[in-house]
Amino acid sequence: MLLSKYFIPTLKHDPAGAHIASHKLMLRAGMIRQISAGIYSWLPLGIRVLSKITNIVKRRMEEIGALEVALPLVQPAQLWRDSGRFCEGKGLGGEMLCAKDSSGQDMLIAPSAEEVASYVTLHNIQSYKELPKVIYQVSWKFRDEIRPRHGVMRCREFLMKDAYSFHNNLDCAQRWYEKFLNAYLRVYKDMGLQAIPVAADSGDMGGEMNHEFHVISNQGESTIYYEDSIINALKQEISLRELEKFYSVSSDVVDTTKKEQLTKTTSVEVGHIFIQGDKYTQNHKIQNDQGVLFSPITCAYGVGISRIIGLIIENNNDENGIIWPKEVAPFDLYVINLKYSDEKCSEMFYKLKTVLDAKRLQVLYDDLEDSVGSKFARADLLGIPVQIIVSPRNSASNSLEVKDRRTGEVTIVSMDRILDVVSTC
Amino acid sequence: MLLSKYFIPTLKHDPAGAHIASHKLMLRAGMIRQISAGIYSWLPLGIRVLSKITNIVKRRMEEIGALEVALPLVQPAQLWRDSGRFCEGKGLGGEMLCAKDSSGQDMLIAPSAEEVASYVTLHNIQSYKELPKVIYQVSWKFRDEIRPRHGVMRCREFLMKDAYSFHNNLDCAQRWYEKFLNAYLRVYKDMGLQAIPVAADSGDMGGEMNHEFHVISNQGESTIYYEDSIINALKQEISLRELEKFYSVSSDVVDTTKKEQLTKTTSVEVGHIFIQGDKYTQNHKIQNDQGVLFSPITCAYGVGISRIIGLIIENNNDENGIIWPKEVAPFDLYVINLKYSDEKCSEMFYKLKTVLDAKRLQVLYDDLEDSVGSKFARADLLGIPVQIIVSPRNSASNSLEVKDRRTGEVTIVSMDRILDVVSTC
Repeated sequence: MLLSKYFIPTLKHDPAGAHIASHKLMLRAGMIRQISAGIYSWLPLGIRVLSKITNIVKRRMEEIGALEVALPLVQPAQLWRDSGRFCEGKGLGGEMLCAKDSSGQDMLIAPSAEEVASYVTLHNIQSYKELPKVIYQVSWKFRDEIRPRHGVMRCREFLMKDAYSFHNNLDCAQRWYEKFLNAYLRVYKDMGLQAIPVAADSGDMGGEMNHEFHVISNQGESTIYYEDSIINALKQEISLRELEKFYSVSSDVVDTTKKEQLTKTTSVEVGHIFIQGDKYTQNHKIQNDQGVLFSPITCAYGVGISRIIGLIIENNNDENGIIWPKEVAPFDLYVINLKYSDEKCSEMFYKLKTVLDAKRLQVLYDDLEDSVGSKFARADLLGIPVQIIVSPRNSASNSLEVKDRRTGEVTIVSMDRILDVVSTC
Repeated sequence: MLLSKYFIPTLKHDPAGAHIASHKLMLRAGMIRQISAGIYSWLPLGIRVLSKITNIVKRRMEEIGALEVALPLVQPAQLWRDSGRFCEGKGLGGEMLCAKDSSGQDMLIAPSAEEVASYVTLHNIQSYKELPKVIYQVSWKFRDEIRPRHGVMRCREFLMKDAYSFHNNLDCAQRWYEKFLNAYLRVYKDMGLQAIPVAADSGDMGGEMNHEFHVISNQGESTIYYEDSIINALKQEISLRELEKFYSVSSDVVDTTKKEQLTKTTSVEVGHIFIQGDKYTQNHKIQNDQGVLFSPITCAYGVGISRIIGLIIENNNDENGIIWPKEVAPFDLYVINLKYSDEKCSEMFYKLKTVLDAKRLQVLYDDLEDSVGSKFARADLLGIPVQIIVSPRNSASNSLEVKDRRTGEVTIVSMDRILDVVSTC
């Protein structure tokens, strides 16, 4: 992709109203623009990262056999009244955005989808033999947060992967809960993140058991407590029973007598899984193998996709800009033509483009007629892991500079070795 | 994918309230379920078709250089007041679903995104040199249709690809309009559809020029008039000037004196493109090459993704069910184990699964313990283009039946030739 044909409106200076690094950098790197408090437009560079994260999550969901669905965005309030989650009369419905439709029916913009997921799944099975059912979706949700802040970290409109599973009994629910627990740990690892599952408060989601997934971050708004030994244990698959050997909790539920022996840290919540019992299925009875009616046990599982991008930037940046981990970088390579007016430079630049495009690498090419200083500043701001610089100084010897964005290390590489070098980056 | 692990709640009989074939069949084939009038949950089989259509559209958008973005779903009403499209006081905002947020601000659920697209694009360019800019998104939209009907053909919540382009002058706008015109014709062809562009009324979108894209369909709610010769001309690339040689119009704008010489037909509108002039950019002035301020010219382009699925089924079905065109079929092959209790059948069935999965074919496997009649009925209802039937009758000679869903033609094929035969289907 040529920068001249792309749309990355970078900003030289920190925008007003942004107080943490990720918020500033997402605005400065032209990834997002605010439309209203906590509501953003995602521009092309932001979309590329959203897609990478989404694909990682979808791949892991398919691996465990969760089935993709799309549940409505605009949902009848009645379903939420039935489950007791509709905040009647409470101003505008608490954190729900509510509206009356043209027929006078109360509707709301979905902040999650337990009610609809249960409705659509359990109205469409005839018998216990068809369980378990496990469905998921990736969709924009809305929570009418009163004090949205920190860019995509605590916003009103956000992209979320939410999954729901339905079971004949608690044993089956626990087996799937464990599958998701491990799938989530893999999801975060795929993104280059070490997540820590912690026992947590289930809030208004209800339930028997729940774990939040946290990633340590200085700017995190959460606090977790954990035994250090859990970090090593998490490097492998972990079963629920093993997990219970370690004490790791969110600050809401910490046992104050244990605090002293634990590591305390700020963190960002990146996922939450629940065994919810029959809270959402009390009106849905099906027959078990004895012909007796029962309400299936449900679990719910969420990953905050858009928020993760804020976290990744929060944990991967320096004074010059973003430093993308390879796994989620919007492009693999950033190629700079340092002097567009120099014939030899432009020749090398376009030759390089032919070679890299033929290899189907994801490359962003800076072909703008711009000052050298602006070009270097933009390259570091956007944070693509590897920069290749075509300059008059090296073009004479048919060479290029290859710079590692994270370490700043620069290597001079001859044109005919560039593919070898790039493939090891 | 094994049917026993999947979620396709088929219905034996036509559901109440569905009056046209596509609506009945999407419900019967377990693709969608209604949650409220004109609001559907999409189940796994429906999602697969949605993804295929979405991918076709995205590929063609990228081919012409449109850049993917995500514009907000919940938008401030003020932007729509500024453009004159907010229906103040008109009940609940006409076809807009409106809500007050927790800060008391009027918001609406986006039915389209001209205002936000203009806002975010033009606030982020400095000069005419950065134009044209061309952005697109695929997202769920909401129109609070008073009389939703015909399933996904006229519903309230729908998946749409909307694109917006911004130009220095009308010439540039026309060049992009033409690019989109041809990209759209290719998009529909990719789906196995012949679309006819017709001059149309621009409604409240505003503008200088617009074309709707229609596909002929008995159950279509639109009427178009056209010269027959246009159909042949559409088989190639077409420029705007060539297109103007043919008279093809929607019934809203037909010249009554010409009606007699034209073909009149019912049709379904599957897309609409507009040159909108400066309707959405009057508050956004930028400098031209002479330093003079001007408002960029915009175009908007829409494809109704979810509605197209209804149309395709409307035009491709028989008394037994859906007949998917290969291009958009949710799976390539449907393999039936006719007698699960027969050892030889099950052996062949799973051997076949190994062979087909290794080739990365998209296959749905009926492994249910069910009657022969139910199995055949389900296969025809779901409408996957090619059925492979493992039965006791043919398993003795290590053979399979291969049935073409459209023609009903059945061929007996030996197991060792199955890949050759399947590859020519």
